[in-house]
Amino acid sequence: MLAVRRDAASMPDRYVLVLAGGRGERFWPWSRPDRPKQFLPLARNGRSLLAATLTRAQRIAPPERIVILTGADWVERTRREMPRGAHVLGEPVGRNTAPAIAAAAMWVENRTPGAAFAVLPSDHAIDDDAAFAADFERAFAAAERERGLVTFGIPPTAPETALGYVKRGAPTGERLFRVAAFTEKPSRERAIQFLAGGDYFWNSGMFVWRADVFLQALTVSRPAMVTALEPLRAAGAAEFQAALERALPECESISVDYAVLEVAPDVMMVEASFDWDDLGSWSAWARRQPRDERGNVTHGQAVVLDCDGCVVVGEGGIAAALGLENTVVVHSDGATLACPLERSEDVRRVSEAVRARVRT
Amino acid sequence: MLAVRRDAASMPDRYVLVLAGGRGERFWPWSRPDRPKQFLPLARNGRSLLAATLTRAQRIAPPERIVILTGADWVERTRREMPRGAHVLGEPVGRNTAPAIAAAAMWVENRTPGAAFAVLPSDHAIDDDAAFAADFERAFAAAERERGLVTFGIPPTAPETALGYVKRGAPTGERLFRVAAFTEKPSRERAIQFLAGGDYFWNSGMFVWRADVFLQALTVSRPAMVTALEPLRAAGAAEFQAALERALPECESISVDYAVLEVAPDVMMVEASFDWDDLGSWSAWARRQPRDERGNVTHGQAVVLDCDGCVVVGEGGIAAALGLENTVVVHSDGATLACPLERSEDVRRVSEAVRARVRT
Repeated sequence: MLAVRRDAASMPDRYVLVLAGGRGERFWPWSRPDRPKQFLPLARNGRSLLAATLTRAQRIAPPERIVILTGADWVERTRREMPRGAHVLGEPVGRNTAPAIAAAAMWVENRTPGAAFAVLPSDHAIDDDAAFAADFERAFAAAERERGLVTFGIPPTAPETALGYVKRGAPTGERLFRVAAFTEKPSRERAIQFLAGGDYFWNSGMFVWRADVFLQALTVSRPAMVTALEPLRAAGAAEFQAALERALPECESISVDYAVLEVAPDVMMVEASFDWDDLGSWSAWARRQPRDERGNVTHGQAVVLDCDGCVVVGEGGIAAALGLENTVVVHSDGATLACPLERSEDVRRVSEAVRARVRT
Repeated sequence: MLAVRRDAASMPDRYVLVLAGGRGERFWPWSRPDRPKQFLPLARNGRSLLAATLTRAQRIAPPERIVILTGADWVERTRREMPRGAHVLGEPVGRNTAPAIAAAAMWVENRTPGAAFAVLPSDHAIDDDAAFAADFERAFAAAERERGLVTFGIPPTAPETALGYVKRGAPTGERLFRVAAFTEKPSRERAIQFLAGGDYFWNSGMFVWRADVFLQALTVSRPAMVTALEPLRAAGAAEFQAALERALPECESISVDYAVLEVAPDVMMVEASFDWDDLGSWSAWARRQPRDERGNVTHGQAVVLDCDGCVVVGEGGIAAALGLENTVVVHSDGATLACPLERSEDVRRVSEAVRARVRT
């Protein structure tokens, strides 16, 4: 099944960390604080993004070597979606990706010293699971043999300004490169240059590295974080959750990109051969859905009359759209959103306004 | 208070019939089969249209001479809105306005033979209650003294194609005319001619006549209906509801315009001096509401960001609109509507589509 055969004797077990802590405000009102994006049936064939991610994870490792980090409130919900034998850890507070990945690295080291693990966000869409498995095989090989920090670069198909970019450097193998630079979300002008140049790739938030190598890099850049998490190294499987609950609040909140990747001296990039979408908005989701003869995407209890190019979703109630063009209309459990499809990047503002309103 | 003094000795008591049987599909999803338009807080200052109508009715008659005809399912709801002493009758089936008015005429005759009554729809908006009272005084005088069938013509302010029109004939008093013709909903072209000519008025569905005179006219045009309702004449106050439940299903379903007004030889028209709107759509309602600085009308739990000229209503949940222009967004108890304001006349189609969907 995998593209490259492994020497079982010399290579330790591989692990997967699935990050499922996002709030997913961009799909309000379908996504809510108690029902974040990864639990929505946004993957093809109506599965949740988390379930689809866990299926892909099993191309890399068996369930017992998969660990999911999620918000404490979502542990039970996560348990219902995960394969038997997989593990879930609940974060008492959100501290962004660096502390979460560091804690998982210790969890891996406790089990198999020297093992490598993949980091997978749980709310992205990928359809080509075979290409995904082959690319990760390549990444693990680089991480295990060359002790590299490996990220995935997605060949960009549009001048996206909502994503970070990775600039590739010298090639070091098939579809494998040194990373020349990481770039934050660019202006539209720069994004167009990136797309034309051919050396810039979307930063997908997926990584592969050995747990010990990652922790070593983090000790250099953020020693306080490693110190705060130190109690996790001694924690047995039964005490790990409790130790995490004590240690995580002591960590600063920072992304792994800032804390490690942008400062580590040697990061590698696999040029991804699989399709990928971060599903950052209603319009991004709609692009991957089947459409009716007038270009409308519907889901659930949707009634559409005289509409063109609309996205109409009725969950827990009816959403009816009449005479609209390129408009999102969502009804979900006690709330409604309507906005032009091209404004769907700004839905987070609506979610924020609703929360502010509820507070007052 | 009233413009014309009455001779209490020679004039019998005046009555009011309030028709509250409409389904109000035009305000879906705010209006529903179990919550028709007349119960919605669409009148100024957030009162229901029915409550506002009953306040006006009391400019004509005291509560004990007011009778409301409504659907059997809405009797209790109506009771909660009506003044103490008023009467409510429940229709076991809807049969349009002619049988309802005929039944009420018999109810009036049973109490005060020879008395006149006003017919008031319960779902129209009128603000100038004083002008309303003065105009009805004029209509009652004509109905009582000249035994006329009196309708109200509303001076048109737009070439409406969703309303019927009354053409005025010879004047017979101050703001009082013979009716030259009734006209069904016209084409836009004809409606523009009507408006320019000055002789056509909107047919408001409000009437005044003596009960005995109305029943006489109906006996000429629809003798079978009068025969079917004959048992009501003998029914005492305690038995009237039961007799109505038996008799009404025997009647044909037909409007009073078709059954009486368009065929009676002598109908009069009072030219109304009060404001009037039949609130036939979301846009009609919005015209009478206060707007924010960008022209948006909001009601209930509404969140509006970057919108212009929108109507946003959140009842029993949040309605959020982002970046829209001249669009209606309504969230009400498990359903959402979004459509351009200019399409709000077609909302009935949505309501029908939803009902068809629920059936299958």
